[in-house]
Amino acid sequence: MQNPTELLKDYIRFPSVSTDPAYGEGMAGARNYACGLLEQLGFTVETVETELHPILLADRIGSPDWPHIVIYGHYDVQPADPFALWTDAPFEPTIRDGRLYGRGAADNKGPTIVHMAALARVLAEHPDLPLNITYVIEGEEEIGSPSMPAFFERYAERLSEADFMLVSDTGSPNTEQIVITTALRGLVDLEVKLRGPKSDLHSGIHGGAVYNPIQALAEICASLHDADGRVNVPGFYDDVVPVFDWERDELKRYPETVESYRRMLDVPAFYPANGLSPLEAVRFGPTLELNGIGGGYQGAGSKTVIPSEAFVKITCRLVADQDPVKIQQQVVQTIRDRCPPGVTLSLREGGIAEAYLVVPPGRPNTPADQPEALARAFRAADRAIGEYFGQAPIYLREGGSIPVIADFKKRAGLDALMIGLFTPIDNLHAPDEGFSLSLMDKAIAAFEDIIKRIAKVS
Amino acid sequence: MQNPTELLKDYIRFPSVSTDPAYGEGMAGARNYACGLLEQLGFTVETVETELHPILLADRIGSPDWPHIVIYGHYDVQPADPFALWTDAPFEPTIRDGRLYGRGAADNKGPTIVHMAALARVLAEHPDLPLNITYVIEGEEEIGSPSMPAFFERYAERLSEADFMLVSDTGSPNTEQIVITTALRGLVDLEVKLRGPKSDLHSGIHGGAVYNPIQALAEICASLHDADGRVNVPGFYDDVVPVFDWERDELKRYPETVESYRRMLDVPAFYPANGLSPLEAVRFGPTLELNGIGGGYQGAGSKTVIPSEAFVKITCRLVADQDPVKIQQQVVQTIRDRCPPGVTLSLREGGIAEAYLVVPPGRPNTPADQPEALARAFRAADRAIGEYFGQAPIYLREGGSIPVIADFKKRAGLDALMIGLFTPIDNLHAPDEGFSLSLMDKAIAAFEDIIKRIAKVS
Repeated sequence: MQNPTELLKDYIRFPSVSTDPAYGEGMAGARNYACGLLEQLGFTVETVETELHPILLADRIGSPDWPHIVIYGHYDVQPADPFALWTDAPFEPTIRDGRLYGRGAADNKGPTIVHMAALARVLAEHPDLPLNITYVIEGEEEIGSPSMPAFFERYAERLSEADFMLVSDTGSPNTEQIVITTALRGLVDLEVKLRGPKSDLHSGIHGGAVYNPIQALAEICASLHDADGRVNVPGFYDDVVPVFDWERDELKRYPETVESYRRMLDVPAFYPANGLSPLEAVRFGPTLELNGIGGGYQGAGSKTVIPSEAFVKITCRLVADQDPVKIQQQVVQTIRDRCPPGVTLSLREGGIAEAYLVVPPGRPNTPADQPEALARAFRAADRAIGEYFGQAPIYLREGGSIPVIADFKKRAGLDALMIGLFTPIDNLHAPDEGFSLSLMDKAIAAFEDIIKRIAKVS
Repeated sequence: MQNPTELLKDYIRFPSVSTDPAYGEGMAGARNYACGLLEQLGFTVETVETELHPILLADRIGSPDWPHIVIYGHYDVQPADPFALWTDAPFEPTIRDGRLYGRGAADNKGPTIVHMAALARVLAEHPDLPLNITYVIEGEEEIGSPSMPAFFERYAERLSEADFMLVSDTGSPNTEQIVITTALRGLVDLEVKLRGPKSDLHSGIHGGAVYNPIQALAEICASLHDADGRVNVPGFYDDVVPVFDWERDELKRYPETVESYRRMLDVPAFYPANGLSPLEAVRFGPTLELNGIGGGYQGAGSKTVIPSEAFVKITCRLVADQDPVKIQQQVVQTIRDRCPPGVTLSLREGGIAEAYLVVPPGRPNTPADQPEALARAFRAADRAIGEYFGQAPIYLREGGSIPVIADFKKRAGLDALMIGLFTPIDNLHAPDEGFSLSLMDKAIAAFEDIIKRIAKVS
């Protein structure tokens, strides 16, 4: 197999923007490229058709007695707009100061090349590697994986024969300190619209008699948190998984302080966050966030109207054991209960996703029945990362959501070993996305070691 | 002088849209037309230059010992867009079913023609009418009268020699029932912007730690009213003029019920309005209204961001004796006091306008020093309207604002007799603006009678 940097450059050159139909050729190019690499590695590749972008499903069967790993990734990327803000063209990869720039360099083409390059090295040394490996590389991750449910309908049983997943679609604080992600938050999406009078009204002629929909909305929104930053929805915290001391201890190793975090966000102060510190709140607590609001006149200057309508977009981030269906119902019911009689409420109940949590081996809350294959993989990763990055990984819950990971668990029973290869300067979803070449080198070496340790060939 | 309907048609044909520089010719045409009519009536007309549209200032000096009336109006109109929604072209006046349609037909060209036609009849009969009359016809009413302050600087002293004003720029419920407006609400304009993080943030990565500016804004907005619909700003009601029983009695004669009003607005219920009925609230109470709100993602579907900013546009309608400077400061201070430390507040303090109130003669709260000329004018209007419309006028405060009326009072000491000639079907500021020709006939007769009674020539 070629030099990994050259592989990644070639992979980036296919503009695989899944959301934009104009990039169909780029999608096909990236898919074929990934398919070709898998075939070079000896995989049997099946291109699973979907309603939009096909999913690559590839198997390499070693010995049936050895562990079976599913490696998940995605070949699609975010749009590159605004193009003008890129230093170089987003789909013409360039190297500057030890970093490879291009759309998808970090999310998720770089990590995919890391896994494949590591596997290539192991296979070069051990062509008869006993491990069984199944690749699932989808093309719709950046648009919410809409084809995965149908994929699971068809393939979950087959996937459930595997032992665990390997994923690198999460972040680490810098190129020296790797984080192994132990949880992802779930999601509940909701939009609330309040309608008052049938059209905008003159605020002089009618002001005082009419329940202004913006005011009603503000009252509802303000009621959804108490002064301590606790979500004020009855039952919201009922099923929240506790935070363990070892998790707070791991967080102390994270190379960020409350003050450095505050300066980075450029906020005058943090939210009270229901008794959690800011660094804890973004990882350990569920949230209810107002993502957008609109109503009435938003142009320059003033316009003296009582608006006919106002809306707010709400998403909740959930932690493990919270049921998104139940939470969505609770939030909806709370908003209905608090809606004043002067306005009419309508709701859009959007998508939901479950949270995910995996506990590394040897912790007070590690499940007694944790499969040995998973425990072994965690131990292998811990040692390999400690050796090749010079510091043991930090085991941390992550605030973001990758709904498909919880789905793999729910549908196929697979837990995930998530080794974070992005860093904050990688500009995911933004102009000048890039990937550190030194991190790539260390990560390939570490993954080579991890695979060998899992396969017991070193 | 020509037939009033023909005069009004000619006047409407000049498209005097003050806000749009493309209509300079229409503005000049309407101004010259009004000037010509005043000259026909024997007025000496001065065209007062301003930074934008000149003001017509015209005098007809009768006998120095007789009352001096200022008649106020405006020759500019609202834009006619959207043109496609008009049945006929807005600047080509047409008559259908006893109504004359065209932009400005009611606001304010029709009432101006009513006044002039009445005056023409009186002068035809009494060429030596003793009354002194000064016309002020401005060209910027529809854009907030920005040139009037400078006009007052120059002419307030001269205007202060007059006794009172006559204005017809307010409404009545229908063509049978005339309202004499006894008050106009003042206005305070304000915009609040809250800034949180320096850019929109990923609600997964940072959600929980950051004070969401939409939430902070909702909390502030919700705090500005209590559950009874009372504005929750310390001091807000300190100077509010009381409502007198005679005013509530007058309102009972108004041909509208709470239920008909509710159906007209198409709202499920009214706002509690601080103990006032809905029909009272829009006339007797001050308000704090949220005219527009915006922040975060407002497109289709969801976007999981914590927005960087959110804003709200607020206007207060004030009643007499509330000082707009003081109210603006109180609202600003209240918002500052309630702004949480996690966000940064910035404010745009917009324009303010004072409320206006005049008490008709013979009421419990009529000022003891009410000038006899004003009292006589009120009595004249009461009798003339009773005679020509068949029903006595209703004396009512109005919820809207005409800031220039309070300015005439403040700068030149002039109270206003405001006889409403619009009706709700006249579509002011909207497509198919029109004016009732039967109301025009009755109004001309009534004004002829009013002028004669004031001048004691009948």
